[in-house]
Amino acid sequence: MRISELSARTGVPVPTIKYYLRERILPPGERTSATQAQYDEAHERRLRLVRALVEVAGLSIERVRRVLAAVDEPSASMTELLHRATDPGAVGSTPRATAFVHALGWEVPEGLGALAELERGLGGLEAAGLDIPRAQLVALADAMDRVAEIEIEGVPTSSSEAAVAYAVLGTELVAPILLSLRRIAHARHTIARFGDEHA
Amino acid sequence: MRISELSARTGVPVPTIKYYLRERILPPGERTSATQAQYDEAHERRLRLVRALVEVAGLSIERVRRVLAAVDEPSASMTELLHRATDPGAVGSTPRATAFVHALGWEVPEGLGALAELERGLGGLEAAGLDIPRAQLVALADAMDRVAEIEIEGVPTSSSEAAVAYAVLGTELVAPILLSLRRIAHARHTIARFGDEHA
Repeated sequence: MRISELSARTGVPVPTIKYYLRERILPPGERTSATQAQYDEAHERRLRLVRALVEVAGLSIERVRRVLAAVDEPSASMTELLHRATDPGAVGSTPRATAFVHALGWEVPEGLGALAELERGLGGLEAAGLDIPRAQLVALADAMDRVAEIEIEGVPTSSSEAAVAYAVLGTELVAPILLSLRRIAHARHTIARFGDEHA
Repeated sequence: MRISELSARTGVPVPTIKYYLRERILPPGERTSATQAQYDEAHERRLRLVRALVEVAGLSIERVRRVLAAVDEPSASMTELLHRATDPGAVGSTPRATAFVHALGWEVPEGLGALAELERGLGGLEAAGLDIPRAQLVALADAMDRVAEIEIEGVPTSSSEAAVAYAVLGTELVAPILLSLRRIAHARHTIARFGDEHA
């Protein structure tokens, strides 16, 4: 297909596709003349992945390049691939987060960016003077562990590209769904505990 | 205590306290001279709540006023109080979200703002072409229902103010903690399913 059809199929504007080609995060098409090239389904899949990484996950071109290098590296393990694609890359010391996660009995890689996020979150509770009992935090962590387990069970293994797209899109797009389900469930549990306001 | 001590105890600057007094979301102190007034622990509790509503939950002064009216209304039920304090107030038609929640068997009040948030989230999945099987969404909803149940069990009932502060602060400040726990758990379940990248 020509670049115009690639654009029509994916919804990515032609100038954006040309930008991705120049940045070499989309491989060149097969030249058919001095000014035209042909693209195939592999380009289409790659373009959808690049768009997800850039537009949904907000990765820089440099990070997209590293993720694609991992996707194209046959020896990269799925674990390494998913880690490179989804780690927020936050840094900072994580004494509280690491201690909490260890107390849960979770084994996680050192230097995980999400630990720095958790550290900030726990600091935010303290700064606001919100005292959540430890047993409650542990129970919440168990529930989120179940969420993560369900999501990782769903990772498709048909291709590295499919797995990375699922992981990146899922991490970003399912988060607001989880939080809105939590708020809806708050309403029903409030009624269950305190009664219906219209009763 | 004087306004300066109220400021020192709560960390809220004096000009901000004066603004809250002018807006009548903090009740006046007891005048001791033409230029001075005394404040007590009730003022301190109310100021902490106002700050949480404004700075953490990002409520407008008008919404703070409505929440405080509910807090001070002896006949307001706890359910009504928590709903007024935490509903995001998002609007829009919610065909997909309502159908999904009904299929879960959840009974929730109509017009709940979080339903509009869920509707947007489900639309975002579709727009990105991310196909999450329905059984997976249902399992995620069950896990978030557990999160909400734990949180509502933790609502303190010592006073309306304490309950509202917990609900508002918890809704906002626990959300990033839940999401970072999810990401940390992703890492461990990825290793459990696909092996350790360093093995």
